[in-house]
Amino acid sequence: MERGYFITFEGLDGSGKTTQLRRLAQSLTDRGYHVVTLRQPGSTALGDRIRGVLLDSRSEASVGQIAPAAELALMFADRAQAIAEIILPALAAGSIVLCDRYTDSSEAYQGGGRQLGSERILALHRAVCDDLQPDLTLLLLPDLEASLARARRRNQRHVQTTGSDENRFEREDEIFYGRIHTAYEQIAAREPQRVVAITDNASIPEIEERIHRIVTARLASRS
Amino acid sequence: MERGYFITFEGLDGSGKTTQLRRLAQSLTDRGYHVVTLRQPGSTALGDRIRGVLLDSRSEASVGQIAPAAELALMFADRAQAIAEIILPALAAGSIVLCDRYTDSSEAYQGGGRQLGSERILALHRAVCDDLQPDLTLLLLPDLEASLARARRRNQRHVQTTGSDENRFEREDEIFYGRIHTAYEQIAAREPQRVVAITDNASIPEIEERIHRIVTARLASRS
Repeated sequence: MERGYFITFEGLDGSGKTTQLRRLAQSLTDRGYHVVTLRQPGSTALGDRIRGVLLDSRSEASVGQIAPAAELALMFADRAQAIAEIILPALAAGSIVLCDRYTDSSEAYQGGGRQLGSERILALHRAVCDDLQPDLTLLLLPDLEASLARARRRNQRHVQTTGSDENRFEREDEIFYGRIHTAYEQIAAREPQRVVAITDNASIPEIEERIHRIVTARLASRS
Repeated sequence: MERGYFITFEGLDGSGKTTQLRRLAQSLTDRGYHVVTLRQPGSTALGDRIRGVLLDSRSEASVGQIAPAAELALMFADRAQAIAEIILPALAAGSIVLCDRYTDSSEAYQGGGRQLGSERILALHRAVCDDLQPDLTLLLLPDLEASLARARRRNQRHVQTTGSDENRFEREDEIFYGRIHTAYEQIAAREPQRVVAITDNASIPEIEERIHRIVTARLASRS
């Protein structure tokens, strides 16, 4: 049986990657492919437990402040479980696997955003994930100004709900987003064959159509 | 202020390391040292959550089978949190930290016993724990035959409680214990300055006395 195909979706929160993943899954299913979708963290029983721990720590509910290196290891525990339980079996069965965030997210958010460094993330990926790489990564990355404008709108809604200090939140947010954006750009530059970056501000249907063409070409050229 | 001192206890289950750790903690406290004790996994709020997930997976309660690489990453998440939350602050405050199991356990049990390999464990330790090494590791490692005799007695009690297939359990157990034992021996041979192995079958008070002398000499020679 033909080995499956492993596609990951990457980008900042609000980039539309989850919407695009769902549309691609529907389109591939309509064309007769068997499609498996998952998100990280989550998607396995262990992943749901880990996701719960991470959410609790953010709301300071019961876990307290999680050390950055501990959070990183939890993310990779989730990923290792998803690889063993979902991704490898699906690929072996010939399915197309669509994953919402993967190791590039760790490299961009923890490595870049939280400044833990790329080398540490890549070493973890080798040690915990046997260096399993996607066949294709679709990176939705409008330029930084457009990404920040989106983030500001999202933050604005957050501020209205919580009454937090808007300006302070935004300054920290801009620096953090800037580092994540740069890290994603560096990943795309380093691995141009694997990573296809969609960097303009096209509409959702336009991006959907472009992704459709990219994926169709890749699937057709599978050896 | 003088930096503290970081001591880990290692060995197979039933080796008596937890008893010895408690006795050393008491003796050091009696001599006026400030002592912080912890065990892995556990000892932090995050660690307790992780310990719960690991125990559930072993009893197949709610998490299902955890992939070996995922279990390893969870162990290191616990360790990273313990380092940030307990070990580094205690050392900075000049305390003596006594830790029941540390990265050598991962190398012996997961690296050796489950055959994930030492290199993977050491890479994780560098990536997640900033390669923080104990000043002294006390390894309680009687020869393999004595360790197996202990394990058989423990298994016998387990068999009587659960009615499981005794012989099959013992054969798997012997091979597994043998690999862990070998891995511990290799760690001790590789790092003779850090690791002091107690390999004979001395009584608990004899071992306690020997540990007392070793630790006293080490603390006296701190620079």
